[in-house]
Amino acid sequence: MMLKELREKVYEANMDLPKHGLVVFTWGNASEIDREKGLFVIKPSGVDYDELTPESMVVCDMDGNVVEGDLNPSSDTATHACLYRAWENVGGIVHTHSTVATAWAQAGRSIPCYGTTQADYFYGEVPCMRGLTKEEIEEAYELNTGNVIVEGFEGKDPMAQPGCLVRNHGPFTWGKDAAAAVYHAVVVEEVAKMSRDAELLCVAAGRAIDDAKAPQYLLDKHYMRKHGPNAYYGQK
Amino acid sequence: MMLKELREKVYEANMDLPKHGLVVFTWGNASEIDREKGLFVIKPSGVDYDELTPESMVVCDMDGNVVEGDLNPSSDTATHACLYRAWENVGGIVHTHSTVATAWAQAGRSIPCYGTTQADYFYGEVPCMRGLTKEEIEEAYELNTGNVIVEGFEGKDPMAQPGCLVRNHGPFTWGKDAAAAVYHAVVVEEVAKMSRDAELLCVAAGRAIDDAKAPQYLLDKHYMRKHGPNAYYGQK
Amino acid sequence: MMLKELREKVYEANMDLPKHGLVVFTWGNASEIDREKGLFVIKPSGVDYDELTPESMVVCDMDGNVVEGDLNPSSDTATHACLYRAWENVGGIVHTHSTVATAWAQAGRSIPCYGTTQADYFYGEVPCMRGLTKEEIEEAYELNTGNVIVEGFEGKDPMAQPGCLVRNHGPFTWGKDAAAAVYHAVVVEEVAKMSRDAELLCVAAGRAIDDAKAPQYLLDKHYMRKHGPNAYYGQK
Amino acid sequence: MMLKELREKVYEANMDLPKHGLVVFTWGNASEIDREKGLFVIKPSGVDYDELTPESMVVCDMDGNVVEGDLNPSSDTATHACLYRAWENVGGIVHTHSTVATAWAQAGRSIPCYGTTQADYFYGEVPCMRGLTKEEIEEAYELNTGNVIVEGFEGKDPMAQPGCLVRNHGPFTWGKDAAAAVYHAVVVEEVAKMSRDAELLCVAAGRAIDDAKAPQYLLDKHYMRKHGPNAYYGQK
Repeated sequence: MMLKELREKVYEANMDLPKHGLVVFTWGNASEIDREKGLFVIKPSGVDYDELTPESMVVCDMDGNVVEGDLNPSSDTATHACLYRAWENVGGIVHTHSTVATAWAQAGRSIPCYGTTQADYFYGEVPCMRGLTKEEIEEAYELNTGNVIVEGFEGKDPMAQPGCLVRNHGPFTWGKDAAAAVYHAVVVEEVAKMSRDAELLCVAAGRAIDDAKAPQYLLDKHYMRKHGPNAYYGQK
Repeated sequence: MMLKELREKVYEANMDLPKHGLVVFTWGNASEIDREKGLFVIKPSGVDYDELTPESMVVCDMDGNVVEGDLNPSSDTATHACLYRAWENVGGIVHTHSTVATAWAQAGRSIPCYGTTQADYFYGEVPCMRGLTKEEIEEAYELNTGNVIVEGFEGKDPMAQPGCLVRNHGPFTWGKDAAAAVYHAVVVEEVAKMSRDAELLCVAAGRAIDDAKAPQYLLDKHYMRKHGPNAYYGQK
Repeated sequence: MMLKELREKVYEANMDLPKHGLVVFTWGNASEIDREKGLFVIKPSGVDYDELTPESMVVCDMDGNVVEGDLNPSSDTATHACLYRAWENVGGIVHTHSTVATAWAQAGRSIPCYGTTQADYFYGEVPCMRGLTKEEIEEAYELNTGNVIVEGFEGKDPMAQPGCLVRNHGPFTWGKDAAAAVYHAVVVEEVAKMSRDAELLCVAAGRAIDDAKAPQYLLDKHYMRKHGPNAYYGQK
Repeated sequence: MMLKELREKVYEANMDLPKHGLVVFTWGNASEIDREKGLFVIKPSGVDYDELTPESMVVCDMDGNVVEGDLNPSSDTATHACLYRAWENVGGIVHTHSTVATAWAQAGRSIPCYGTTQADYFYGEVPCMRGLTKEEIEEAYELNTGNVIVEGFEGKDPMAQPGCLVRNHGPFTWGKDAAAAVYHAVVVEEVAKMSRDAELLCVAAGRAIDDAKAPQYLLDKHYMRKHGPNAYYGQK
């Protein structure tokens, strides 16, 4: 069996999704890529989390074709493949329907950066992508979901905003590996809750929600504290 | 004892309701029908979930009369029987007072389809039924609850919208068997949360909630991806 | 040691409060009365739930004086005693600061009856009491909390509305025994959530919250289904 | 190894943060000071909670310099040190990004005192500090976070309002030791939820949120019941 270690990592990343309360039933998937081999491992489609094993993971090439595995890969495989092709620094991808992030996606709204919780991982907002057109959906839905995300990040660094909301759908997040993508999925759900409540508290007090936005110099500081060349958070 | 296997399935479905956080105390019930025998199995009324056993389930005929069982069947038995009589494809039914779905029912509002989480299982909204009249309530409350649901689905396919909200009361869901009805009860509670939050986020940003509605072609795509003759989600 | 069985029941009722998520730290208390002996048993004040035992419960007379027990009784003892003196059908009392019921109390609002979940246990609203005056607070705060509740129920049957909200404070509930009072505390928190969300959904759709009120004949039906002489819910 | 007992206490306080649902991943820290030695013990930076041990805690002097420990101390160490220097009664400090308290901080709003849950621990509001200036952030971010808190409490008793919100960031709480600071962190998150909901219920009913404020004499009574010389809550 190919890519034993990677299967194990992707299996663990998938199992972490329900543990963090991000996934009900089978509504999520995680993948990670082996850049040298040009192959990625992804969850099979519609299989219960307690029936998953490292062996049941599916190996795909960069066009999303199955290379090894008895089961169908996640129905979102073409989206994962598209992002791996477009962004060479991305090593892992996660998709969920986590409750509050999905609510933002349904409202068609980017999550503004109201504070340091978000600024520690996102250099700015969690952007909401434009909706797919009728043609894009009918022609190649999952591939075009990926294309719309890539389009939405033109001129942006996907590693500095490691996630987005697909309109009327839900969040996709990514990172250097599958575990990092899971981490960012947790961040997105958490800031989705905080920012919803921050806005409601502005409304209740008759204030403009825009006044809640964190100033740029605070975002700069927090992001750089963790990610810049002079990062000093954690154990380096 | 009759219908041993069916009793087991209905028992499991009922036990899944508190596991999914849909039921407090005894506020829910699940049933499943054996179409050949014209009998359905349902939870007894007002019995604690940790005292339930497959043997304590009650067997009823299609008029809701007890055929086997020492305990009274759920007080909602006449509603279940009514739906089984009206809809021959329905194999299982669930009723809960799950918190947020019940809030929509209390507000007297259908849950609009704002995204793919709902579109994967509901071809459109989760409809809220009209309130029962004074006469309907006094005459035959539980039976007329069923009648009002059947009336609300005239011209609709109950398998394409496998659930509804009974006004000022709470959700009823159904499916090919009791397990599917439980699944749809989870979906309804989950989309109830997402859609509440999506609307609040529209309000906070000064946008119309109607703008959040998913376009019809997205609903078509998602529903057909799972349910049409060309379905490609999961392992077929 | 006196009232061994009652101590056990009150202990269990107290332990059920954190299990149902109604109490953080020591922010709640339950009591039950032995009407023949004119004594009630109540939780000691400010003791951690995991240090409670049936033996640490405190026995009080109907003026709230300690009859047996090494520890101080709950600081709300005078409120419990006051309600026991005023209402002879009440056998158990619970006070919590459960999150959403407390929010209604802080808003100074009664919980309107928007649906059958509430109507099954409350014949109408969960009423919010008037605030205590400066004099009432300074003179005898806990006793006057009881007096204000009794005043608020003048002309009402406390067994048909087994709970209330004390303004800027939180819910008190009661019933035939401590277990019933706990049950009603759960009901109040649950309907507090449902009704908050029902109102927000009315606001989001531009509807009047009053339109969400359940019609009187539905309330009559549900309450009588469980409580009237012709009750048919559960196993009788 | 120095300060063995204190390391144990700080370790326990840190472990209590995720247990109370206040912390995701590594987003929180607790410390406690030994006033005689002029040293405090704090969590290491960015280490997973399940890898923490009493031995991995870091000992710092009152300028925040590491005195003993192989790991970097929390990135918020300079804030803790600043508060210990300014306030000699404070024995323990906690910082979290707990969801709803952080939402208030993001909205830039103090939590008004709407009820007794807050009044039992805070003599008035949970104040939100002014935002840091660009210069303060760039020059010495964590130290100036402490300075802004100290400035915000000028003329106030930090032991009577044992916590605050740092704008666009999150809550800091304190107390006589680390355990008390954890306790107050729970209180702040709990009243953040209650007060958010109380305000939404005022808005839904068309009332002014200011009307929900608890009267001063109620605040006096509750705070003094637990903290004044005539306190009578708990076992003294």
